Amino acid sequence: MLQTAGSSNVLIEHTALGNTVYEPLRVDTVSLRLGGVAQIADRIGDPGGWQVMEVGDGNLNLVFIVTGERGRIVVKQALPYVRAAGESWPLSLNRAYFEQHALTRLGQRAPDRLPQLYLFDPAQALQVIEHLYPHVILRKQLIAGKFLPGLALQLGTYLARSLFRGSDLCMPTAQLKADVALFLGNSELTGITEDLFFTDPFCECSRNRHTPGLDADAAVVRRDRELKIAALELKCRFSTVRQTLLHGDLHTGSVMVCDADTKIIDAEFASYGPMGFDLGSLLGNLWLAYFAQVAHRGSVEDCAAYCSWILQVVAEIWGVFAAEFSQLWRTERNGILGGKDLFELQDDPGGAEIVLQSTLQAIWKDTLGYAGLEMHRRILGFAHVADFESIADDAMRAACARKALAAGRQLTVYRRSLKTVAQANALVAGQGLAC
Amino acid sequence: MLQTAGSSNVLIEHTALGNTVYEPLRVDTVSLRLGGVAQIADRIGDPGGWQVMEVGDGNLNLVFIVTGERGRIVVKQALPYVRAAGESWPLSLNRAYFEQHALTRLGQRAPDRLPQLYLFDPAQALQVIEHLYPHVILRKQLIAGKFLPGLALQLGTYLARSLFRGSDLCMPTAQLKADVALFLGNSELTGITEDLFFTDPFCECSRNRHTPGLDADAAVVRRDRELKIAALELKCRFSTVRQTLLHGDLHTGSVMVCDADTKIIDAEFASYGPMGFDLGSLLGNLWLAYFAQVAHRGSVEDCAAYCSWILQVVAEIWGVFAAEFSQLWRTERNGILGGKDLFELQDDPGGAEIVLQSTLQAIWKDTLGYAGLEMHRRILGFAHVADFESIADDAMRAACARKALAAGRQLTVYRRSLKTVAQANALVAGQGLAC
Repeated sequence: MLQTAGSSNVLIEHTALGNTVYEPLRVDTVSLRLGGVAQIADRIGDPGGWQVMEVGDGNLNLVFIVTGERGRIVVKQALPYVRAAGESWPLSLNRAYFEQHALTRLGQRAPDRLPQLYLFDPAQALQVIEHLYPHVILRKQLIAGKFLPGLALQLGTYLARSLFRGSDLCMPTAQLKADVALFLGNSELTGITEDLFFTDPFCECSRNRHTPGLDADAAVVRRDRELKIAALELKCRFSTVRQTLLHGDLHTGSVMVCDADTKIIDAEFASYGPMGFDLGSLLGNLWLAYFAQVAHRGSVEDCAAYCSWILQVVAEIWGVFAAEFSQLWRTERNGILGGKDLFELQDDPGGAEIVLQSTLQAIWKDTLGYAGLEMHRRILGFAHVADFESIADDAMRAACARKALAAGRQLTVYRRSLKTVAQANALVAGQGLAC
Repeated sequence: MLQTAGSSNVLIEHTALGNTVYEPLRVDTVSLRLGGVAQIADRIGDPGGWQVMEVGDGNLNLVFIVTGERGRIVVKQALPYVRAAGESWPLSLNRAYFEQHALTRLGQRAPDRLPQLYLFDPAQALQVIEHLYPHVILRKQLIAGKFLPGLALQLGTYLARSLFRGSDLCMPTAQLKADVALFLGNSELTGITEDLFFTDPFCECSRNRHTPGLDADAAVVRRDRELKIAALELKCRFSTVRQTLLHGDLHTGSVMVCDADTKIIDAEFASYGPMGFDLGSLLGNLWLAYFAQVAHRGSVEDCAAYCSWILQVVAEIWGVFAAEFSQLWRTERNGILGGKDLFELQDDPGGAEIVLQSTLQAIWKDTLGYAGLEMHRRILGFAHVADFESIADDAMRAACARKALAAGRQLTVYRRSLKTVAQANALVAGQGLAC
């Protein structure tokens, strides 16, 4: 059975691999099992010459790069458990189904920012996706200290377009309501976020771990009533405010970059939630990268220059987001929550501008809240980040993390008072670096 | 095909009436078409002796009371259009499907407050429901000036139980997410609320009407930027904050009362939304009843006494709601948004009490916002209320409505400042009565 995905011309073959029983791929079975699929062979060449590498370094899936005589593809297959935890933590395969739905939707809303989906096989929980070249994971480039001039513009634009166009500010409401219902089916992945992001880091929990030397810091966090109240408020908003289709896991490991291009990958955590969640996840990871720099740069000058660039990227992402969001507000705001009927159509465009400003302020407040929580969960929770994990020295890693926790707490707790990105960046910079 | 509805033992027969093609009932066809359904004949007696009355006075449906030798039932059948507007406003029949789902869920959450559902036939969009006796529609009793001693306790308790137990404070989250998705299917009815409640009253719109003499008042409302900004904010919350299963249309015409009992009917507008929506709809209608009293009571003393009682009912509903909600918070808060893991399980019950208070404050703020909008839409929009419609004198009706609009505006616009129900009631009373 062949289906087209969304309005794109991607072919989705439901049993492309000719087997309705799920079976994980292995490096030595990829050619055998995918070789007979004409769309793939047509694209990259004769299966006899394929070279296969397994490159999955995330927490969840198998990822293969398949190289043929005419090109490359990425094959991503879900495993029936959390890869980073092992088979003791089972996870349903249908996340691949939600990921391909998210990939097509986000790709339509933010053209050129997502890889092409070539094929989806639900029985194998498998997607065949465009191979991005010469792109590298953003987190790796931040650890390497690489300046990326186009990054902020492309990320800010992506965020504004995907978040605005997936909301009732813009979408036909029947279609939006059907999509909210669709993505509520992705409850297992959303549940991971609900636990790992909002609760575990603030509790004793067997899934948590932290760097030696942070025991006292972790204990302070877990007694921090103000922070925990904020975490619960932000969890309530994440779980009830079905505002737009989120990527749902937009950290710097879900962004691939090269000098000229930025792409967003790994959308299996997609769900409807508050716009600030994607923004906060991304800014939180950039601020984490900031606090890790002192361990990665060779000189104080290099460190200062790169840290300054990171803060500039944060400021530009928000600035570009706000500008593009405002542009879309003025030109594409035809959804039921746009309020054109109340303002522009009654000769009061000024009223709409006021609502735009309060909307941006509300998104910003959420952004800060989620950013600060992301900074906690990556240091005290289950899933850590290479920015810190790659620091060999325990004491240095702990010192960097301690600064990040201090900044993260203030970003979250004082999210209502920090009105501008300059104020937030100043707060981050005010922690100093752990050198 | 027989199915049980939820965990109740109600039998739901999918083609009980032996006809898969929808056909509206008429008084003279009810016995013929329902007479062969054993569950009904067993309950009320031989169809040969049935007496049938059509009593639907709402905006949407056919409602028959069928009396047999052993008892009575209510037969409610959806029409494929809005009854109050005629066939030019089509409306899908599947609202009966959502209503029976809401009826069973709300009935389980708030025992004894909803009528029993005996049978649901989806092909005929038809429900057979318990006949309530000697209950009368609350709105009629408010117009008649009847004191109802148990009303506030039963309504406040109903609201706390139905709203708390339908939320992620309490429900297993997978079940809640499936229910949110289910009720998103009721988008046509939700769409009516989105238009008629939040937008139409604040625009020129052909569906609107108002009492002669209110032209200038209507024009002022439609130029009132502050009020319209509030209306749009509250619409955004209604359409995105999927907090709990709402009745969705909880005005005083959806409540049936007798001296000892209060029942909630007509749940076809059920959707997931913010808790304050049901509360605000109800309080808004009680405040509307307040402003109409001067036209319905025979003496100044009677009017003052009954108005005072209405405000007391409002205060008691909120007080009972807050007390019962707090009790449920302390005893049934096992859902993912309860935060027990962050507070009680870390020896900080005080933290949970603070979150309870901020949760109640947020519900109260929404309640005021929605109440004030309800007061507008019932005076300037499509669906009016008998409290005002039954005032024969145009000038008197306009004067009463003008007071209600003035109060409603302040309740909505100043919802963040009015911290207590006493303050809100004082603001209402401060308008004076139009006598």
